[in-house]
Amino acid sequence: MLSAKDKNQEICIAVDAMGSDKGPSELIAGVKLAFREGSKKFKILLVGDETVLNPILKEQKLLGDKNIKVVHASEVITMEDKPMVAIKSKKNSSMLIAIELVKTGQAQAMVSCGNTGAMMAAGTLRLRPMSPVERPALATIIPAKDRTFVMLDVGANPSPKDVHFLSNAILGTNYARIALGIENPKVGLLTIGTEEGKGNEIVQRAHELLKNSTSAINYAGPIEGFHVYQGDCDVILCDGFMGNILLKASEGLFKMIMNLLKEEFKKNILRKFGILLASGAIKSLKKRMPVEKVSGAPLLGLNGLIVKGHGSSSKEQLCGALSVCVDCVHKNMNEHIKNDLEKVSKLLDQNQYNDD
Amino acid sequence: MLSAKDKNQEICIAVDAMGSDKGPSELIAGVKLAFREGSKKFKILLVGDETVLNPILKEQKLLGDKNIKVVHASEVITMEDKPMVAIKSKKNSSMLIAIELVKTGQAQAMVSCGNTGAMMAAGTLRLRPMSPVERPALATIIPAKDRTFVMLDVGANPSPKDVHFLSNAILGTNYARIALGIENPKVGLLTIGTEEGKGNEIVQRAHELLKNSTSAINYAGPIEGFHVYQGDCDVILCDGFMGNILLKASEGLFKMIMNLLKEEFKKNILRKFGILLASGAIKSLKKRMPVEKVSGAPLLGLNGLIVKGHGSSSKEQLCGALSVCVDCVHKNMNEHIKNDLEKVSKLLDQNQYNDD
Repeated sequence: MLSAKDKNQEICIAVDAMGSDKGPSELIAGVKLAFREGSKKFKILLVGDETVLNPILKEQKLLGDKNIKVVHASEVITMEDKPMVAIKSKKNSSMLIAIELVKTGQAQAMVSCGNTGAMMAAGTLRLRPMSPVERPALATIIPAKDRTFVMLDVGANPSPKDVHFLSNAILGTNYARIALGIENPKVGLLTIGTEEGKGNEIVQRAHELLKNSTSAINYAGPIEGFHVYQGDCDVILCDGFMGNILLKASEGLFKMIMNLLKEEFKKNILRKFGILLASGAIKSLKKRMPVEKVSGAPLLGLNGLIVKGHGSSSKEQLCGALSVCVDCVHKNMNEHIKNDLEKVSKLLDQNQYNDD
Repeated sequence: MLSAKDKNQEICIAVDAMGSDKGPSELIAGVKLAFREGSKKFKILLVGDETVLNPILKEQKLLGDKNIKVVHASEVITMEDKPMVAIKSKKNSSMLIAIELVKTGQAQAMVSCGNTGAMMAAGTLRLRPMSPVERPALATIIPAKDRTFVMLDVGANPSPKDVHFLSNAILGTNYARIALGIENPKVGLLTIGTEEGKGNEIVQRAHELLKNSTSAINYAGPIEGFHVYQGDCDVILCDGFMGNILLKASEGLFKMIMNLLKEEFKKNILRKFGILLASGAIKSLKKRMPVEKVSGAPLLGLNGLIVKGHGSSSKEQLCGALSVCVDCVHKNMNEHIKNDLEKVSKLLDQNQYNDD
């Protein structure tokens, strides 16, 4: 078992340095930032083509740094690669080697800003879900009115079974404890209509399971779409199909509103002058919003931790993703998840038998 | 068959005057506005408690108007009523009587701003889906970047079969022709990942059906969440569970952004002064956005037309909903839908046999 339980064990994170939109230079700058800003000590295994990485390390004055070691990888999985094809044909890719470093215990977590589908598939196949979790879940942090919340699943499992909602509730609760610092996060189940008997069949069955799992989670009940951004819940559960579309549509809507505002502010001299004076407001708003804020989405429920950075991650965002990794490893998140799963193991098992 | 095909036939709309948040007075003001602004002539059957409605009509100088007739209804279905209970126990409610007026041909369409669940259930039970449509779909108009689009289903059918996506494509296409004035609307299927084989199973099967239905629709293929607000499609297809949550979450996100902007603009004197000068921009933005724009959502695919107005509809919004009704009746939307369904009847039938 890999964990940082042993206080003397060093935290080591593998970084897939290739395959992101902005290239390895931006990611290495992110590592540098994380070394400078992080409150915990950790080491980095930088995975990628050493003939590309070493010159960048030299340029950024990190060559020879005792906390960074380059692990050579001759191939790259690109954004255009088909996930299942790529993970079979590119065994020497930086992403697969980084995952292997977690599998063999040389790193406790890995971060990649590359192809999401390949990362989810390879992570699941190599690290395997921790029993009795059947499928991992991709979680993300989203800002609501006066706070942030965790939403999962946002794409790993498009057609979950009822028990997956329960295991996801436990995954999300433990992630929220670390990422949001909330001891007893409120869990809501996203559906239509909050009366008993509304929503689709899977969600209704999930609701019954969640109601009976108060030993492990703080279930607040079903919530509707208009609750999402009101910040009533700390963890919002939905299937991966819904979560992925909702996340991407919300990012799109936010961008659209910002663009329309820009247009409107340019329409006449008075508005142009006014917004020049008030421009700080727009800048702060952007900082508070989804698109800018999401820095790393963990694939939860595996034996080992995998964190997905945005494809076009800036150094600040990579730094954020690393900080998520370090916190989760330092606080033994996966150990806590196992303990909580144990508390509802009867519910998880019973339903698995019923379903299979 | 009810239609306005016979040019001499008068258009008559039943309005459920009770059960909305703002009360009958606002709705009657909406009728007055529609009479004044509408380009087509039409009559209104105003359904509700005559002891309540007559004094309001008098006050608004509409009592005795030859284009309004009050149809008495002694009961009201409230927002709190459970839909299935209400439609069994409140036979004399304004909503059920208004639907009955469509059923008997005294009106060609009805508008209600009351309980959505009751309206969908009663509408479906009394008017029945037009063959071979199995389930109606609730459609709504949403603004994207430089245009508006139709999204359906937003709540009538949370767990559709594959064929329902095809019938919904035809319903949405015909509604977009009238409501958006686009002759050959582009239809997109909302999913995750646009490569073949991605998304959930139902959506994959729906994609195959839609690809083979070019005789009736202009299918543009699968689209992802971030496409929604880019305005690439005129009609976006999704299941009612997804659509309802996406619509409500988008409204919530828009409100949240507006509130945060307000907060930010108040943070210092400079910003306060700036936004005072540029306030016109915020006002225009609000006018262009979902929350303000949606005035009526038709329940498509029934024998007769039912349009849902927002529960807290203003007179302008009720006027908008009435204008949707008048246009759909005037342009014989349901006749055109029947013709288009006929073109793909083999696909619809074949799959119904497979599924049942």
